[in-house]
Amino acid sequence: MVLDRLKQLSLHVDGTSPTPHPFDPLTTAEIDAAVAIIRAEHGSVRFNAVTLWEPRKSEMMAWLANPHNAPRPHRVADAVVIVPGGKVYDGVVDLTEKKIVEWKHTPGVQPLITMEDLQSVETLMRKDPKIIEQCEIIGIPKSDMDKVYCDPWTIGYDERFGNGVRLQQALMYYRPTIDDCQYAFPLDFCPIFNAETKEFIHIDVPPVRRPISKAAPINYHVDAIEKEGGFRNDIATINITQPDGVSFKVNGKHIEWQNWNIHVGFNYREGIVLNNITYNDKGTVRPVFYRLSLAEMVVPYGNPEHPHQRKHAFDLGEYGGGYMTNSLTLGCDCKGAIHYMDAAFVNAAGASTIVKNAICIHEEDAGILFKHTDFRDDSVIVTRGRKLIISHIFTAANYEYCVYWIFHQDGTVQLDIKLTGILNTYAMNPGEDTYGWGTEVYPGVNAHNHQHLFCLRVDPNIDGSNNTVFQVDAVRGPGEVGSAENKHGNAFYAKKTKFSTPKEAMSDYDGSTSRTWEMANTNKLNRYSKKPVSYKLVSREVPSLLPREGGLVWKRAGFARHAVHVTKYSDEQIHPAGRHVPQTSGEPSHGLPMWISETENESIENTDVVLWHTFGITHFPSPEDFPIMPAEPMTLLLRPRNFFDRNPVLDVPPSYARTPSQVLKGINGCGGKCGDGSSRTV
Amino acid sequence: MVLDRLKQLSLHVDGTSPTPHPFDPLTTAEIDAAVAIIRAEHGSVRFNAVTLWEPRKSEMMAWLANPHNAPRPHRVADAVVIVPGGKVYDGVVDLTEKKIVEWKHTPGVQPLITMEDLQSVETLMRKDPKIIEQCEIIGIPKSDMDKVYCDPWTIGYDERFGNGVRLQQALMYYRPTIDDCQYAFPLDFCPIFNAETKEFIHIDVPPVRRPISKAAPINYHVDAIEKEGGFRNDIATINITQPDGVSFKVNGKHIEWQNWNIHVGFNYREGIVLNNITYNDKGTVRPVFYRLSLAEMVVPYGNPEHPHQRKHAFDLGEYGGGYMTNSLTLGCDCKGAIHYMDAAFVNAAGASTIVKNAICIHEEDAGILFKHTDFRDDSVIVTRGRKLIISHIFTAANYEYCVYWIFHQDGTVQLDIKLTGILNTYAMNPGEDTYGWGTEVYPGVNAHNHQHLFCLRVDPNIDGSNNTVFQVDAVRGPGEVGSAENKHGNAFYAKKTKFSTPKEAMSDYDGSTSRTWEMANTNKLNRYSKKPVSYKLVSREVPSLLPREGGLVWKRAGFARHAVHVTKYSDEQIHPAGRHVPQTSGEPSHGLPMWISETENESIENTDVVLWHTFGITHFPSPEDFPIMPAEPMTLLLRPRNFFDRNPVLDVPPSYARTPSQVLKGINGCGGKCGDGSSRTV
Repeated sequence: MVLDRLKQLSLHVDGTSPTPHPFDPLTTAEIDAAVAIIRAEHGSVRFNAVTLWEPRKSEMMAWLANPHNAPRPHRVADAVVIVPGGKVYDGVVDLTEKKIVEWKHTPGVQPLITMEDLQSVETLMRKDPKIIEQCEIIGIPKSDMDKVYCDPWTIGYDERFGNGVRLQQALMYYRPTIDDCQYAFPLDFCPIFNAETKEFIHIDVPPVRRPISKAAPINYHVDAIEKEGGFRNDIATINITQPDGVSFKVNGKHIEWQNWNIHVGFNYREGIVLNNITYNDKGTVRPVFYRLSLAEMVVPYGNPEHPHQRKHAFDLGEYGGGYMTNSLTLGCDCKGAIHYMDAAFVNAAGASTIVKNAICIHEEDAGILFKHTDFRDDSVIVTRGRKLIISHIFTAANYEYCVYWIFHQDGTVQLDIKLTGILNTYAMNPGEDTYGWGTEVYPGVNAHNHQHLFCLRVDPNIDGSNNTVFQVDAVRGPGEVGSAENKHGNAFYAKKTKFSTPKEAMSDYDGSTSRTWEMANTNKLNRYSKKPVSYKLVSREVPSLLPREGGLVWKRAGFARHAVHVTKYSDEQIHPAGRHVPQTSGEPSHGLPMWISETENESIENTDVVLWHTFGITHFPSPEDFPIMPAEPMTLLLRPRNFFDRNPVLDVPPSYARTPSQVLKGINGCGGKCGDGSSRTV
Repeated sequence: MVLDRLKQLSLHVDGTSPTPHPFDPLTTAEIDAAVAIIRAEHGSVRFNAVTLWEPRKSEMMAWLANPHNAPRPHRVADAVVIVPGGKVYDGVVDLTEKKIVEWKHTPGVQPLITMEDLQSVETLMRKDPKIIEQCEIIGIPKSDMDKVYCDPWTIGYDERFGNGVRLQQALMYYRPTIDDCQYAFPLDFCPIFNAETKEFIHIDVPPVRRPISKAAPINYHVDAIEKEGGFRNDIATINITQPDGVSFKVNGKHIEWQNWNIHVGFNYREGIVLNNITYNDKGTVRPVFYRLSLAEMVVPYGNPEHPHQRKHAFDLGEYGGGYMTNSLTLGCDCKGAIHYMDAAFVNAAGASTIVKNAICIHEEDAGILFKHTDFRDDSVIVTRGRKLIISHIFTAANYEYCVYWIFHQDGTVQLDIKLTGILNTYAMNPGEDTYGWGTEVYPGVNAHNHQHLFCLRVDPNIDGSNNTVFQVDAVRGPGEVGSAENKHGNAFYAKKTKFSTPKEAMSDYDGSTSRTWEMANTNKLNRYSKKPVSYKLVSREVPSLLPREGGLVWKRAGFARHAVHVTKYSDEQIHPAGRHVPQTSGEPSHGLPMWISETENESIENTDVVLWHTFGITHFPSPEDFPIMPAEPMTLLLRPRNFFDRNPVLDVPPSYARTPSQVLKGINGCGGKCGDGSSRTV
């Protein structure tokens, strides 16, 4: 039976569908095949993840360089399964060969918590006598247990329980009615759930109790707004249309647009993964990045009272930015002419699943790309830019993260993140002092201080994989004011510090020197500047990791200790807080700190390197963030510097142009095709 | 004759046109009237500026509070004139009373250089024998003098010449043909021009000569691009239309949009000035800012070799961001449904002039305003935002500055600046060492390191004019890891430091604490958080002033020594580098340093204060910036914190919404009007 299914599926894998590109996420057929192969050998297991085991880079680079002769990398699945009793196995299944090539029990780890894991907790919680008792203590009658909700989180790490058992902490809430925003009614206690036995093993109860808030609900849903006066009706429609189609071409998962070529992948952990990003520079296809992704994040909360230290979600490593991704809606999440891509996952039972419209790809007008007017004669050129946006949105319990990978015509890659959704909240009594660890955003609602720290993984491929990273600081030149070398004191320059080893490369942000980091290919100098071709990381939202050195978050989120780490490339190093993040104690610190401690003095000069960048914001909530938060924006840039011999967008047609000689002759510029036909004055 | 003209004009001023609002820029009729009044008394003078003498704040606040009974502020002109012989007079003309109310000779200053001042230099330069000689020395024959150009700059300050005589330095260039980009052929010498005698009084010649570059021209104009292969043709049209009109209402110079009300002014120095900005909070019109503007900027260059220290343009104070403003073109500078405003100035001869379409006002879709999905049932709300953009663009010789004042529905004000145009360049010999002070962006072209430092002047009016400024740092809580108070080390909070005096308020940026500054009204606490209502300045591009303490730029650009200064409001304090900037020596430092030294220990708590914020970028050029620079973006935010009792945009109609109960009942949300009609999948 299983073999029949396998045989049937292998048709899909081998023949009836077009062969996926080696970077492509696994298709549903491939997921089904991997599951069948595992089932055939290991029987009934629970699937935590079945995702693309990415081709080894050396093999992949060889194939990309010579796709007709080099061996095509096999399609391979990376599986995480939990067998009855809770043992975790990491498996690798070669789908081309149809066999398991690696299968190992990984003790002492907990793979991430899936949505299925989460959703089972709430129902059980409502029936637990000890939880019912706690609810009654704070004023919720037993008959109201259907109004009690919980957001189950991984436990993070709690030294009392260790990591031998798969645990969740249930952040408790109450909804007066089903449509009410539960975050306005947080409960003061926190049950701990054993995911294997399906039992609540403990309840953290605070020393001072906080009865359920008597405040009126505060809501954002349509009925609530209509009841209090309705919606504003003074927003005129804006239509954004592309009557002649879009400027990008889709070829499988490759997007070709304005000299860029980008492979768009997606996995359950990182969400969007961009591979083999190249820029066609006047006919020469130049590699820029081998791989870009958000590889991890951590959201530490700043209230030191027990058990709030456990609130420091690794949303990618503990839950999965892919698993939590939204199915996007036309004209709502993205506006204009949209190309969608779906995402395929596995569920616990081993069935492949699809999130429709998980990725949105679209263009936007980008305002002025360049402009210059000659003050002598008003001769002018003004050229409008365009951008390509590849985005997804994921919901991490209360919060929404909107992730926008933006490609500009001039070679710049921008990563924008918008934070929205709802604040995580905790109960407070009337008049209670928050001690500055949070803000009362509504009566009875304490929204704790927190940070959102993202780890961007950049695998540069700046004209090849042998790259070197430099720290660049804007600093004053030598010589005091009045000295011969700096008489007027105005000397300043870009001080470049080469990172020779991973140890040297552990670097912090310095706002006072406008610090940036350059990923350079020192083997290739710019034709004019004679400086190495490079891409510069320009990132200005770079808070310090506020949890203290040696503490729980510092230990578990080693990647967040510095703004930048650089490592030598390894196929095994994708997840900077480790492959399995839930319930790691941080002793030792998995991921980056461990990799670096093993290689800290090895050379990272002129070799295949990976740059890890932690950025984000520190959020001190305020009432305008509640009951749902207007989006808070963040941005960073990867900019070509000394990469091109000149401005690479000179051939973008100008919107308006008139040269001095045309001004003299009194003739209009740009062949009468100035401006656009659709703009109007009002 | 003059009196006839005056009489005729006063009709316009008094009767035939609607009475301008006290904040309105002077109309052409008012400029003409002011000129006529001055001429009647002082004869033939040269006009440097005639602009609105802004109503005194106390008078204006009284009138705004009670427009029917309080005296309406007079229309008053602020004039700067130069009398034959070069003496400078500052005059104030009451247009309502039709009389000069102030007229004083201001010795030892030079008012800004107008476009007219600039444009006369080039013609004279081409005929100057000493300049012709210098051109010949570097390889430009006398017969080619029509191909020699200069960008005249104020001299900044040169201790050899002081400030008694009005001087310009001519940055010299060559154009092989009239349409060539002159910045590819910089000349190595720098003549000094006396604007009163119309003579070149000196030429700065470098010790090592740099013959004119033999490189081929590098151009961005249409013919040049067509010759080398033409324009890309793979950009599909994007139309942005508002079929039902726009969402904003224009009432004179007032713009009403999405609860905002903003008076849009404009002057020759600062360009756009926004006054009396209020937000209608559920029926209560709440003042937010009395006045917002870019008040000054300085662009120091980092090459210490003489005479490059003189390159540190104060583009607003020395040339005028208004005077240099562009007339904008539909669909090119702004796209969509555009409302334009013109700008009125005076010319040297005293005639009023108009720049058509100087200000662009339009809306843009702002992406997701807020979103939340409940992971339990996929109930969801997603609401798109809108923004209102008030922009202008000015050309400062080689550079373009695009200034966008952006209003968001949620109460956020954003200032975006895009830098484009052309690098300022200097000559270099083949193989010459730049010593790190610049980059060879093209053969023979040395683009020097420089900073663009802007001074944002914020006159807050947070629920009234009695405001207090706090510095806010994200810092770790007390207690080592393991201590009772901070066992896991995760405590952090917002440390607020009140600025009690201007001296205390001289503060620098600190990226490691994500430093922000709050303008608060401590007399009014947020209903829920019990924190003072406030607006927070979130600005992340805040480089240090790199020219050294005690040096020329440091002395002249005192405002740029710190990221933030706070002063007590004074009607006289608008220009942070002083009223007349050209040729100031910086001894003493005019503007902010002087004001602060006089008041450094006076209280700025709970009173009418002004916050001055210096931000910008440090630019190390690279070849992709040449021959014209793809726009480099900058941004900062003014965000309401504890200002609103809750999210103020809940009543923006959702693009898609479905509540848990609707999910249960299987019904769609938002009354079947989900999404927009114009978006499409491709």
